Amino acid sequence: MREVWVVGAAMNRFGKMPETGREAITRVSLEALDRAGVSPQAVNHTFLSNCFGVAERQAHLGPLLNTGLGIPEVPSCTIESACSSTSAALHEAFVHVAGGFAEVALVAGVEKLSHLDTLAATSYFAMGADYPFETRHGATFPGLYATLANAHQAKFGTTAEELGSVAVKNHANAAHNPHAHFQKPITMETYLHSPMIASPLRLYDCCPFSDGAAAVVVAAREAVNRPRAEPLVIRASVRTGSIADMHDRSTLTGLPATRLAGEKAFRQAKITPEQVSFLELHDCFTIAELMALEDLGFAPAGAAGKLTADGETAHDGRLPVNPSGGLKAKGHPVSATGAGQVVEIFEQFNHQAGGRQVPRVEYALAHNVGATGGSCSVHIFGHR
Amino acid sequence: MREVWVVGAAMNRFGKMPETGREAITRVSLEALDRAGVSPQAVNHTFLSNCFGVAERQAHLGPLLNTGLGIPEVPSCTIESACSSTSAALHEAFVHVAGGFAEVALVAGVEKLSHLDTLAATSYFAMGADYPFETRHGATFPGLYATLANAHQAKFGTTAEELGSVAVKNHANAAHNPHAHFQKPITMETYLHSPMIASPLRLYDCCPFSDGAAAVVVAAREAVNRPRAEPLVIRASVRTGSIADMHDRSTLTGLPATRLAGEKAFRQAKITPEQVSFLELHDCFTIAELMALEDLGFAPAGAAGKLTADGETAHDGRLPVNPSGGLKAKGHPVSATGAGQVVEIFEQFNHQAGGRQVPRVEYALAHNVGATGGSCSVHIFGHR
Repeated sequence: MREVWVVGAAMNRFGKMPETGREAITRVSLEALDRAGVSPQAVNHTFLSNCFGVAERQAHLGPLLNTGLGIPEVPSCTIESACSSTSAALHEAFVHVAGGFAEVALVAGVEKLSHLDTLAATSYFAMGADYPFETRHGATFPGLYATLANAHQAKFGTTAEELGSVAVKNHANAAHNPHAHFQKPITMETYLHSPMIASPLRLYDCCPFSDGAAAVVVAAREAVNRPRAEPLVIRASVRTGSIADMHDRSTLTGLPATRLAGEKAFRQAKITPEQVSFLELHDCFTIAELMALEDLGFAPAGAAGKLTADGETAHDGRLPVNPSGGLKAKGHPVSATGAGQVVEIFEQFNHQAGGRQVPRVEYALAHNVGATGGSCSVHIFGHR
Repeated sequence: MREVWVVGAAMNRFGKMPETGREAITRVSLEALDRAGVSPQAVNHTFLSNCFGVAERQAHLGPLLNTGLGIPEVPSCTIESACSSTSAALHEAFVHVAGGFAEVALVAGVEKLSHLDTLAATSYFAMGADYPFETRHGATFPGLYATLANAHQAKFGTTAEELGSVAVKNHANAAHNPHAHFQKPITMETYLHSPMIASPLRLYDCCPFSDGAAAVVVAAREAVNRPRAEPLVIRASVRTGSIADMHDRSTLTGLPATRLAGEKAFRQAKITPEQVSFLELHDCFTIAELMALEDLGFAPAGAAGKLTADGETAHDGRLPVNPSGGLKAKGHPVSATGAGQVVEIFEQFNHQAGGRQVPRVEYALAHNVGATGGSCSVHIFGHR
């Protein structure tokens, strides 16, 4: 198995894109290739994520992207795994390069739903849940994650202020991130007085609907002569699943797919959680960040709330979590989210993260969840 | 690189499915695993294709399938490449198994659109084309393939009867295929009097909208102790692309992606077209079968029409083409089509093809096209 590097990564500002998804992802892919110092002609395979292209009346985006990049003969496919789509695409790129089937692969994710009204956009998002058993009965993601939050509060006494401390921290980080959807800090006061969406989750517990595009260039170590930027070495690339529906699971205070992915990833990377410098976690709702910290072994069960409220996960804390602002404040354009996490890690490793730069960059972990954890990806990145 | 086998394959009858896509693909996957003599618990990765799940309000089908199979912890992702989706999924499975990342992988494709009206179904299909430059101006696939047919007729004098001979042959084959959407032979008379859809393409030049599900079990040779059926050895697994839009290409009488895929596949398999016993080709329209025969090197440019009219590609001819009935008559449930081709080859290799059994089964080639050839897959299968 060959060593696989991330040699370039780029994203646009998440939020509302005036251009089409195709235009955005073409531009961002060229930027990622340029950052890598890799010509489009060196790409052997494109893995694209675009869950809701039908909202733009456009499926089969890969050949359009490759044509736009000037490499029409290069194979492409669309990879989806709900909110963890580009992480799944990154895993495919990793497998192709590690196995010697490609020297350079492009991972590109894009989503545009802002031209739809909120109900239509919500309907698209909700398709990640189980239609006959969940969505059809009115369950959408805020309600499903509220169920997890209720269970966590009932078992561990997790407080509103602890949930709020995730939101306050991530908004503070995003204020230093020019790629972020929201770039304004919020106070605990603002959080506590924001409208209730699905008890106990308030408005500021929820990530926004964002448009966005992000791209990552993956290459075999042997294929890169002189990297233009400090590469990320992919030390672990792990994907898992779990029982799709929460109502059939044995636990509601964590995600089994995350636990399994974490265990496998640390085994693959041959490191322990203590060695990780910072994390990009899947915080589609504040409770998700707390559960992920616990499921991945960074905090004992029920202890992540206090950890966060104590400031340990701030960007200059002991274990910075979501220095980018996370899905919560950087934004969550479904198919661009996983690649966006890698962009943050790439910029941190290259000390280009400005006011959100974390103190240590030895190992970083990216965690990306599909829906309520029916699927999960964990990647661990290190240095050469 | 390890030798990779197809050890099981199954499909339902293409046409109109009363059940949901999820129910169909779960049942068919279990049948493919049973034919392989492989327990679901042996599966390491599921690659699912389901382009238009949104029509059933269901994205993220992988975890639902794996949960239904009793293997919820197994990773899954959705792979799409328009009409060549399950071939793209098969390629990912091939790469995972050949590279040692999985011992057994499940490839599953399903599509259900029959609950929509024809206009809505057409709109979904048309999303495989280029929205701003093609679809928005009224171009859908019958019109786009009619353009190719016109160019072929203008350059080579291809006749209506030659196009019709593809339809008559494929309907004759499908009459012996219990999996086929249409199981009734047609005459040349019927063909020539069928309504014009997009000149020169008549009703019987066009494949139908079909629902359907098909699954393929892929395994490393080392992982199979005693195969329950005669396995297919994957001698080549190749994917390519081409300029997405026909109006930007230098040729309209063939598909550049097919030509490139064919060349690469024969090189990978280390065989020549002469060694291939029979073909499953992407005949979404009759002209597509003729172009594929020429692009893949089975006939000189412009000669495939006469070859077909002369009966050489009949199921008992010199080079049987689409013994299954092809997309034309077996049906074309977008995401199940590629896997459906493999089911046919599996049944032919196992001499289970009844009245459509071909005389020789040494090597078989499957060719699957995305849209008008923005993407293409070619697989070559042989014996142990």
